[in-house]
Amino acid sequence: MTDTQTRSQSLEKLRELVKDIDFCMLTTIDEDGDPHSRPMSSNGDIDPNGDLWFFTSASSHKVAEVARSAKVNVSFADPDNQRYVSVTGVAQLIRDREKIDELWRPEFKLWFPKGKDDPEVALLCVSLEKGEYWDSPSSTIGYALSFVSSLITGKQPDFGENKKVDLQ
Amino acid sequence: MTDTQTRSQSLEKLRELVKDIDFCMLTTIDEDGDPHSRPMSSNGDIDPNGDLWFFTSASSHKVAEVARSAKVNVSFADPDNQRYVSVTGVAQLIRDREKIDELWRPEFKLWFPKGKDDPEVALLCVSLEKGEYWDSPSSTIGYALSFVSSLITGKQPDFGENKKVDLQ
Repeated sequence: MTDTQTRSQSLEKLRELVKDIDFCMLTTIDEDGDPHSRPMSSNGDIDPNGDLWFFTSASSHKVAEVARSAKVNVSFADPDNQRYVSVTGVAQLIRDREKIDELWRPEFKLWFPKGKDDPEVALLCVSLEKGEYWDSPSSTIGYALSFVSSLITGKQPDFGENKKVDLQ
Repeated sequence: MTDTQTRSQSLEKLRELVKDIDFCMLTTIDEDGDPHSRPMSSNGDIDPNGDLWFFTSASSHKVAEVARSAKVNVSFADPDNQRYVSVTGVAQLIRDREKIDELWRPEFKLWFPKGKDDPEVALLCVSLEKGEYWDSPSSTIGYALSFVSSLITGKQPDFGENKKVDLQ
């Protein structure tokens, strides 16, 4: 039970940190094995299961990249508050019409002019495995409070690690 | 000469876009082949040669990652202005004291309390190969003007590609 609680607490913390950051950078591995990133709207949310949902065109380049190499990184930056979140997970293409209906918002017509019933409209679901964050209670990231938390193992956050975090 | 000019123009555009974004996310490939990112200060600059310089501890985890897999991605996010830049390049550890002296700023003591002469203080130089940006002249990224420019090939930016950009 303790592990479950810790996973749930870690997830809750990550959800809280990203809820006001609508756009994030999704990094996939390209055909040369190199990291490749682009901005994506996460709809401001990691869902309670630890999944991130992105609308995508089913024939987009990133879908082909994910089919080859499913592990992706998603990073959220809020430079005004010196708040950064990096999560790693497994991405898969989801073409479930019910889920598309549930998550669709009218403004997505900007990217999908034919609307949500266009068969090209699909979802990329990223099931989070690991998360890391840098959250600054003061105005400089130099005093960041941070931890690495494994959402899979439910490992206890280590609040003593703030000196070791990769800000150097 | 045309290629050189185009490379130089592309580079100038990228430099202009990131100059007010101090923190970026550096994505490396970890020991499992997965993308792994953390916030880094780029000192607000891509230099005129197309290199990004980061201070790092020589024994940090990211240095070990780069030694195994030198290709990295660096993304810059300015959500207030819906401006995003993603660049890919080759990273290498540089321990040149002269370059460290040139780039050192007193506030870096926050991360390196022993100061710039600490032998642990080193630089990670990322030589850019490709760049991509999403820059929004209006208030919504849906109207983004964007292009993919190859800094290596000096390929002409394609301003007609804004519909194809990976925002979907």
